[in-house]
Amino acid sequence: MEEKRTEISQLGEFGLINRIANNFSLHQASSLKGIGDDAAVIDAGDDVMLVSTDMLLEGIHFDLSYMPLQHLGYKAVAVNVSDIAAMNGKPEQIVVGLGISNRFSVEAVDALYKGIHAACENYKVDLVGGDTTASPSGLVISVSVLGRTRKGNEVYRSGAKDKDIICVTGDLGGAYIGLQILEREKAVYKANPEMQPELDKYEYTVSRQLKPEARMDIIYELADLGIRPTAMIDVSDGLASELLHISASSGVGVRIFEDKIPIDEEAYTTAVEFKLDPFTCALNGGEDYELLFTIRQDDFEKIKNHADIHFIGYVHPDPKQNVLITKNGNVVPLKAQGWEHF
Amino acid sequence: MEEKRTEISQLGEFGLINRIANNFSLHQASSLKGIGDDAAVIDAGDDVMLVSTDMLLEGIHFDLSYMPLQHLGYKAVAVNVSDIAAMNGKPEQIVVGLGISNRFSVEAVDALYKGIHAACENYKVDLVGGDTTASPSGLVISVSVLGRTRKGNEVYRSGAKDKDIICVTGDLGGAYIGLQILEREKAVYKANPEMQPELDKYEYTVSRQLKPEARMDIIYELADLGIRPTAMIDVSDGLASELLHISASSGVGVRIFEDKIPIDEEAYTTAVEFKLDPFTCALNGGEDYELLFTIRQDDFEKIKNHADIHFIGYVHPDPKQNVLITKNGNVVPLKAQGWEHF
Repeated sequence: MEEKRTEISQLGEFGLINRIANNFSLHQASSLKGIGDDAAVIDAGDDVMLVSTDMLLEGIHFDLSYMPLQHLGYKAVAVNVSDIAAMNGKPEQIVVGLGISNRFSVEAVDALYKGIHAACENYKVDLVGGDTTASPSGLVISVSVLGRTRKGNEVYRSGAKDKDIICVTGDLGGAYIGLQILEREKAVYKANPEMQPELDKYEYTVSRQLKPEARMDIIYELADLGIRPTAMIDVSDGLASELLHISASSGVGVRIFEDKIPIDEEAYTTAVEFKLDPFTCALNGGEDYELLFTIRQDDFEKIKNHADIHFIGYVHPDPKQNVLITKNGNVVPLKAQGWEHF
Repeated sequence: MEEKRTEISQLGEFGLINRIANNFSLHQASSLKGIGDDAAVIDAGDDVMLVSTDMLLEGIHFDLSYMPLQHLGYKAVAVNVSDIAAMNGKPEQIVVGLGISNRFSVEAVDALYKGIHAACENYKVDLVGGDTTASPSGLVISVSVLGRTRKGNEVYRSGAKDKDIICVTGDLGGAYIGLQILEREKAVYKANPEMQPELDKYEYTVSRQLKPEARMDIIYELADLGIRPTAMIDVSDGLASELLHISASSGVGVRIFEDKIPIDEEAYTTAVEFKLDPFTCALNGGEDYELLFTIRQDDFEKIKNHADIHFIGYVHPDPKQNVLITKNGNVVPLKAQGWEHF
């Protein structure tokens, strides 16, 4: 019997997720939102609970030759917290699944949990459970996070409306450029183990890759200012990909301006050093864990002078017109490249 | 600089979990119970939410040479639902983290999710999210489950009291014996690929390993009968290990009777065929996913004739006396062997 074999790479990550999601429907009254946003939304009386999960695998998401275990533990929590931030919620609990092979010592596990602990302290999250098991080879960390907000205060990808202003926090592309630096230094070290890595001049950019932060600070500030974004997502796959998610979920189009995309100076010059276009890095790099959100025009006054929120474009009614206006005025369609590990 | 290296095997799984748990404390008011039971307990107004996570790794928890992907998907959900059952809750949502290498096709992922879907239907659970990623080699499935019950209705490992009756559902040891059969047939097949596996006469025992069920039926029946167990745990590591967890958490001791331990006839004869003691398999085999619980003596009348609940002993005040009374009247201390993958 000939069995049909379709390669996962033919579908890609998003294609595979859609294929899975299409076969499942929601039956529990408490399931307010399932697959398709940064977190699921569960009824909890006056509140909603937000649930999300992220899995990090050695050899795919991290390389222990340059990723210290403590940073890895911190990052595993931060990327989950970022999903809760993207729903306009506060993180409260995590559970951690850990698979470790016998090449890791108890001291290595301690270092990993030291990072998890630091993130729990920083984001005010409780570690409430987990599963620790042996792994045949690599390290596997799977974190699930629970967050919370008042019912109706959660923000979906689907709420962007015509004329809303598109905002993004921090700066973009740094995490991707940081990864290029780390990969280069690894290659140099492999060729000549007596070479010491030169990372000092790339401190900020490298830290964007190794020590990402979830932007909970922005969530608390927006709440203080009385702003509830109309739509929100975190930048994990790259700005272009996230903009297209908002477009598809909200049924609107986006217009963004190249010269408004925030790029850190060190990241910019480093990208040029690597013969990379800094804007391509910002659009498609991913892993920056900044927040991309839309606000009503009425809310603009309240945050127009915010040092760390940048206004990169606006929403219009046509979901088929998602474009970047380049510095010299060209109109270029936005394309998601995202991460294709498969 | 000499770095200290302690092997994980020196601590074992439970030692490692304790080491981790000791460094974390709870800060969120909503965290009612953290590490140390079958699930964490989170405040949700009139209800509590129950959260648990289990990770299954290829080469450690399953062998795809005899574990069909569809069964694996079902089992990954069932073992999580079992943790919710053990808290006296109802499962409502799951999120699934999946790591797959390119040796798996889209059709293989479909088979896995077919099993996940069947379990979701059976246990009335919604798949509300997940993370799908490439894996460098093996298959990794991490499921986190959310359950719910009315506040105060949840059952901990810690509530067993003097004179309570110890109950266990179904039969024990079968899953472990099923694994021995599958391992033997694999070895036979490896030696001679033309040999077909002989599994027909071991159908029940093999199904205990490949198709475990969470005992939600018992949870619904106990609720109908108005019985709330005083303590409960699911049998994932083996009866002895779970009894010692209840003893340690409740600060009581247990006395159980060898001749009351339920063992299926096929499992019994198969154990003998494999020169294994059926009672040792039942005490230390694990993976049966039955429920072990204690009830007040007043509740005994209500379930004394239940065909699938067995009364194997009783609780007494001394937490240092956890014993098995053998058929010929010997008093033997209970020892947990559990699973030591490290």
